Amino acid sequence: MSSDSDRECPLDGDPHQQEMVPSKKSAVLVDGVVLNGPTTDAKAGEKFVEEACRLIMEEVVLKATDVSEKVCEWRPPEQLKQLLDLDMRNTGEPHHRLLELCRDVIHYSVKTNHPRFFNQLYAGLDYYSLVARFMTEALNPSVYTYEVSPVFLLVEEAVLKKMIEFIGWKEGDGIFNPGGSVSNMYAMNLARYKYCPDIKEKGLSGLPRLILFTSAECHYSMKKAASFLGIGTENVCFVETDGRGKMVPEELEKQIWQARKEGAAPFLVCATSGTTVLGAFDPLDEIADICERHGLWLHVDASWGGSALMSRKHRKLLRGIHRADSVAWNPHKMLMAGIQCCALLVKDKSDLLKKCYSAKASYLFQQDKFYDVSYDTGDKSIQCSRRPDAFKFWMTWKALGTLGLEERVNRALALSRYLVEEIKKREGFKLLLEPEYANICFWYIPPSLREMEEGPEFWEKLNVVAPTIKERMMKKGSLMLGYQPHRGKVNFFRQVVISPQVSREDMDFLLDEIDLLGRDM
Amino acid sequence: MSSDSDRECPLDGDPHQQEMVPSKKSAVLVDGVVLNGPTTDAKAGEKFVEEACRLIMEEVVLKATDVSEKVCEWRPPEQLKQLLDLDMRNTGEPHHRLLELCRDVIHYSVKTNHPRFFNQLYAGLDYYSLVARFMTEALNPSVYTYEVSPVFLLVEEAVLKKMIEFIGWKEGDGIFNPGGSVSNMYAMNLARYKYCPDIKEKGLSGLPRLILFTSAECHYSMKKAASFLGIGTENVCFVETDGRGKMVPEELEKQIWQARKEGAAPFLVCATSGTTVLGAFDPLDEIADICERHGLWLHVDASWGGSALMSRKHRKLLRGIHRADSVAWNPHKMLMAGIQCCALLVKDKSDLLKKCYSAKASYLFQQDKFYDVSYDTGDKSIQCSRRPDAFKFWMTWKALGTLGLEERVNRALALSRYLVEEIKKREGFKLLLEPEYANICFWYIPPSLREMEEGPEFWEKLNVVAPTIKERMMKKGSLMLGYQPHRGKVNFFRQVVISPQVSREDMDFLLDEIDLLGRDM
Repeated sequence: MSSDSDRECPLDGDPHQQEMVPSKKSAVLVDGVVLNGPTTDAKAGEKFVEEACRLIMEEVVLKATDVSEKVCEWRPPEQLKQLLDLDMRNTGEPHHRLLELCRDVIHYSVKTNHPRFFNQLYAGLDYYSLVARFMTEALNPSVYTYEVSPVFLLVEEAVLKKMIEFIGWKEGDGIFNPGGSVSNMYAMNLARYKYCPDIKEKGLSGLPRLILFTSAECHYSMKKAASFLGIGTENVCFVETDGRGKMVPEELEKQIWQARKEGAAPFLVCATSGTTVLGAFDPLDEIADICERHGLWLHVDASWGGSALMSRKHRKLLRGIHRADSVAWNPHKMLMAGIQCCALLVKDKSDLLKKCYSAKASYLFQQDKFYDVSYDTGDKSIQCSRRPDAFKFWMTWKALGTLGLEERVNRALALSRYLVEEIKKREGFKLLLEPEYANICFWYIPPSLREMEEGPEFWEKLNVVAPTIKERMMKKGSLMLGYQPHRGKVNFFRQVVISPQVSREDMDFLLDEIDLLGRDM
Repeated sequence: MSSDSDRECPLDGDPHQQEMVPSKKSAVLVDGVVLNGPTTDAKAGEKFVEEACRLIMEEVVLKATDVSEKVCEWRPPEQLKQLLDLDMRNTGEPHHRLLELCRDVIHYSVKTNHPRFFNQLYAGLDYYSLVARFMTEALNPSVYTYEVSPVFLLVEEAVLKKMIEFIGWKEGDGIFNPGGSVSNMYAMNLARYKYCPDIKEKGLSGLPRLILFTSAECHYSMKKAASFLGIGTENVCFVETDGRGKMVPEELEKQIWQARKEGAAPFLVCATSGTTVLGAFDPLDEIADICERHGLWLHVDASWGGSALMSRKHRKLLRGIHRADSVAWNPHKMLMAGIQCCALLVKDKSDLLKKCYSAKASYLFQQDKFYDVSYDTGDKSIQCSRRPDAFKFWMTWKALGTLGLEERVNRALALSRYLVEEIKKREGFKLLLEPEYANICFWYIPPSLREMEEGPEFWEKLNVVAPTIKERMMKKGSLMLGYQPHRGKVNFFRQVVISPQVSREDMDFLLDEIDLLGRDM
């Protein structure tokens, strides 16, 4: 069955030293390779970086605030493949050609920092986090040991401490990780470890069926997590929500009793603060009461809504969050720290994270180092290499101060309010529900449907309106916002307001443009 | 039990609009917030970005090739906290102060791109991937749907296809993800899904004990994965290795039989191509034979060694890799794509990744979009937001061509060879073993120990040599390389050669410097 891998190497032609600078006189050769001096032409490389930075500045940063630029330059996949020179070849491309490629990549990429990009739960351009991101890319650290990442580990510690303070805990622990989905996985595993520490070594085999509870409006990562962690998606119990998308506490308690009766082992309740579609906030205090009564870990997925904690006016949306055992909070969303900046925060201070996750790699976490190795926090992570994501948020926080961050949240929510009132005023627009947060869900009802009775035919026709308008806006490049069907409701728009570059004028434009694109339907 | 979250908000003082530009005459106010126009002062922000870019260019990029710069500016944690102004306050800092902070962050950060940083399995500065990283930070995409990330999804597809070609598969699938550890988790879950698809819904409860096999020299992420996935660390069976750190196939087969006899359910063998400490390559062909006989999924953790596939000379290290079911390969290591750039590659083309991972979020993966939604690959991921890591590798590949990448690998391995020969020549240096790859493991034996018999006292004394020299080199800032004890061997140095900025002169310096720092011991 053995085969010669050499034969399969998809390379042909002679080796050609792209990077080679002229070799020295007294060359040291090993295996035919000259080992004297570096082979990189640093001067040329530096010049390339400088030119590319200029391009990025001109084509991305300076245009980010210009509403006359297109949000996207739509091309269907097969056509875009033709337009871009994606092939990787045996020989490299010269710098001027690479710069053209960079220009193309920028041209055909969606401008997520455009003031009229409202498509996801992130948007806009934060100059401070951008600088932090450029710095970390240049420094290329990995955050596992103090020895290789002293500054970024201390920054992470400081940021976690501050976030913990805003949750309302006296102390706690935490870790930045690649996404709210991963934060939720961390929490699920922690809750499981707390419930039965033996699972770390023994696994789930032979144990009773573990079961967890979350709202029917929760993020889809709860299912992914249950599947990944070997718990199984059928053991995620979805609790009914009220008309505004909030978990009904009485239903939660009923389901817990029911699960126990069936012999399952409840171990976790996950509440959501800011659901993905409706922006709903579960009643944390009532849920915390139930968790206390039943001895269950309370995790709050505040990936989206956590930023409201920065605002004295709006933090009441998360009333009771200090009673959670763990919280997921993504500053890359409303606080604009850049994809990705996500913290899992844990109330426990008995080193639960470390106990649950450590594997004690002796090549990384040597105990005979000359400094305090409690700063080598990498063993708390499921990752080995890890990016310094806390630093992006830290830079913005330093630049704006807590008050500046609060201002951003307040403004995003005030703009949302403004949009809601405009939707109510305008003919052909219909709110799905009165929003609590920055998700404004609404239908656009084109003229031909305005007189129709709201029966099956109406809904069927309305269902194609948002996708059609979305297609038109993308092809025009004027605007991007999301749409989806949701729990029996036909396709509606979900508008998300985040960036301080956005103004009332953009809200007006949004409604005008939807009307313009859909009024013939 | 309820408490007023407003009361707990750790903010005091009056709101102060850091970002506010002068409000317009006919202001629209909602909740006391002016909604006209953007509140960000774009001009000032752009200027800040420009100044910071200049700083990054001068202090990081231009200094990266300068061996006269220090690798690190060591400060112990408590002292560094004093030196850095880490506190986040209510009010923000002016731009000139932020630039000072940036300068401090750079100053006290370890220069992982310094030619004498040999501490981890990544190093050096690749100008092309750096540009790609700056671009993606500025564009801030998330790679889940074609609609928001058209270019980066196509780039990922192209890069995966090319990597699959180099593995020697005719077709396949894959996904970039945040780290080799996560790749290994993906593979473990895929193998489990293939073994028993019901586990996705039902979980592991009530199932027989699943068991997997990996070498005693494998990466510590295998244990983390087994724990996280609910399999349990006790169900990771560590197979004995030979004197060079390679898995012994006969031992593997014995253990599989033994596990079956004990009623456990074997489902996965993980071979390692390039172990973390010794750089050993497991015999893939022999292991693949065993996996075929027993119907087991073969995953190859080539996170570190995968880059040898780019070299016609060295790809034989991975002979048989085309027989794997999945492969982890991190271009951020020897191919210098920047932390993180990690692919999990899967031979299956029946959409196994998607079947195993999908959760079908209706707000993201709408099926009524106007384009071919097979390009919306985000549902194959455990993440929701995901960074465009493939793009960094793509840019370098475009710049250097396959031949340039091959050249890098060949040169790193030739330099390793050179270092090995020098170590053999020099008094006081002792190789741990003849390396196969770019990990050169050796002891420095200071003069006082050179005449001593190799008994317990000798080893005890030798054990403190590497940590002491490491402390001295970090305090001096001249060089960084790792050390560890390993499987009964006392602390030794592990030198890793990667970057094309490194030369023979740096190898000589390394040995001279260690001797200089340790000769009084």
